[in-house]
Amino acid sequence: MHGVCLCQNLVQAPDKDNVVESLEGRSVKLTLAYDGTDYVGWQRQANGVSIQAVLEDALARIEDRRVTLAGSGRTDAGVHALGQVASVRLCCPLNEQELIRALNSMLPRDIRVLCAERADSDFHARYAALSKTYRYRVVTSKVLSPFEQRYSWHVTRALDSVQMRDASTLLCGRHDFSAFQVGEPVSSPTIRTIFKFEMQSSSVKPGDEVDGGFVITFEITGDGFLRHMVRSIVGTLVQVGSGKRELSTIERALRLGDRTEVGPTAPARGLFLVRVNY
Amino acid sequence: MHGVCLCQNLVQAPDKDNVVESLEGRSVKLTLAYDGTDYVGWQRQANGVSIQAVLEDALARIEDRRVTLAGSGRTDAGVHALGQVASVRLCCPLNEQELIRALNSMLPRDIRVLCAERADSDFHARYAALSKTYRYRVVTSKVLSPFEQRYSWHVTRALDSVQMRDASTLLCGRHDFSAFQVGEPVSSPTIRTIFKFEMQSSSVKPGDEVDGGFVITFEITGDGFLRHMVRSIVGTLVQVGSGKRELSTIERALRLGDRTEVGPTAPARGLFLVRVNY
Repeated sequence: MHGVCLCQNLVQAPDKDNVVESLEGRSVKLTLAYDGTDYVGWQRQANGVSIQAVLEDALARIEDRRVTLAGSGRTDAGVHALGQVASVRLCCPLNEQELIRALNSMLPRDIRVLCAERADSDFHARYAALSKTYRYRVVTSKVLSPFEQRYSWHVTRALDSVQMRDASTLLCGRHDFSAFQVGEPVSSPTIRTIFKFEMQSSSVKPGDEVDGGFVITFEITGDGFLRHMVRSIVGTLVQVGSGKRELSTIERALRLGDRTEVGPTAPARGLFLVRVNY
Repeated sequence: MHGVCLCQNLVQAPDKDNVVESLEGRSVKLTLAYDGTDYVGWQRQANGVSIQAVLEDALARIEDRRVTLAGSGRTDAGVHALGQVASVRLCCPLNEQELIRALNSMLPRDIRVLCAERADSDFHARYAALSKTYRYRVVTSKVLSPFEQRYSWHVTRALDSVQMRDASTLLCGRHDFSAFQVGEPVSSPTIRTIFKFEMQSSSVKPGDEVDGGFVITFEITGDGFLRHMVRSIVGTLVQVGSGKRELSTIERALRLGDRTEVGPTAPARGLFLVRVNY
C-alpha cells in the first residue's frame, strides 16, 4: 500500500528489546478482536495460520518490510479475543485512523483492528500489562444453539451456581496456581493474583426458541495467567457445580499444587480475552 | 440406525400431498435452528449443500428409506433460523426424544433439531402456518466485531430510528407488497398482512471493546412474505434512516407497486426466521 518508509522516530529501545528493527519507527498500540475458531492461536507457528502471522503479513504490506508484533500474551488455538493488545513499531506515514482502515481492508473479517494509538516509545504490550480479564461462557441448554457452538462450552448437566460461586471466591487473591497449569511448566514462578472473579447466570433467551437452560459467564481478572489456567479453573468449577468435586479440593489444589485435585481443561471455544489493563 | 420400518399409521394424505411415500408413517413436526452461513439455503438444489438435503439425508439413515421433509417455507442462502418448522412422515420406532438425539448426533453442529412432536395426521408445515416472524439485525459500529460478521448487516452511517420507526408503521397492515418482491414474481397474489413490526435499538455492549454504535433489530410478523420481501423492507428502512429516501416513497411503493421506490435488498446474513406460528 505504501512503499515509502518514513522513519519518524528513532528512539532508544528498552534493554529487553534487542531486535534491530524494533529501534525504528514510532510505537503503536493496537487493540484487536478476533474469532479464534479457524486459527492455531495467537503465536506464529509452522502447523497452521496464526493471528499474529495474519496481522504481521498485513503490516508488512503497509510497511514494505517485515515487522514484529508483540502481543500481550498468547491465546491458544480456538480462543477468542474482544480486546487483545499488541505493540509494534511502524514507519509508514499513515495516521492512526488510516492505519485502522488500511489494516481492516486487508484482514479477514474474523480479525479486526478496533483501535490504533500512538504509544510511549518504550511501550511493550506484554511487559507493560498490569492485569488481564478473561471471560468464559458455559451453556446448559439441552440442545446447543448453532449460534453458540463456536463460542461456548455445552454442559448438559444442571450446575449449582451457589457451589460454583463459593469455589470462585476461594480462588481469589494471591496463590500458587501450579496445580492449574497444564503441560510443560513454562513460567517458573507460579504465584499469581486473581483480583476479581465474577459469575453471572442468565436464562437462555426465550425468543430464541431453545429449550431453556442457562448461559453461565465467568469473568476473571488477574495479574497474569499460567498456561491453560483459566480453562482448568472453569473445568474444576463445572465439576464442583455438578457435584462431582468437593469445595475442599480447591483448597488442597492451591495448598499442595496437586493437579489431581483439579478438573479437566475446559474447551478453548468458550474462552475470550476481554481486555488487557495497563 | 434403525433398519426396521414399522408403519404405525397409514393415513389419508390431504389432496395437495400426492406423493406416495407421504402416505406412510406418523406425522412429525420438527422445530429447527440453523446457522445458514455455509448453506445454499433451505431448499435442496444442485449447486451446493442445502439445509433440507442435510436433514433428509440424516432422516434417511434413521428410516432406511428416502423421506421428504416439508419446510414452512424456503430460507435463502446465508439466512439463519431460530425456529424453522418442517413436517415429515416417519415409520421408525424412535420416540420424539430419541429422534432429537439421533438426528443431532448425525447433523453438523450448525443445524440443530430443537424439538420433535407428534402432529395431526394431515399436518403440513407450510399449509398449516398462520404467520411467521422474522428478525433482521443491523449493526452501526465503526468497526464490525468479528462475532457479528456472520449475523448482521454492517452499516457505517448513523441511522435515524424515529424516521425508521415511522416507516415501519406505514408498512403494517394489509397491503400489496409487489414492490418489495425481488426476482421473478413467484407468488401471483402479492397482498400480504403485516401484523406486527417492532424495532429495537441498543448500544453495542461496552464490555466488548468495540467503538460504540448500535445494534438495531427489526422484528416483523406477517401472514406470509414474498421473495426477499423482509430484506427489501430493511434495505428501504435503512435508506430512510440515513436520509437517502423520503417517508413518502413507502406510501408510493405500496400504492403503485413500483420497485424503484424501494431500497436495495439487505444482505442475507442479518436475517433470521424466528418462529412459525400455527
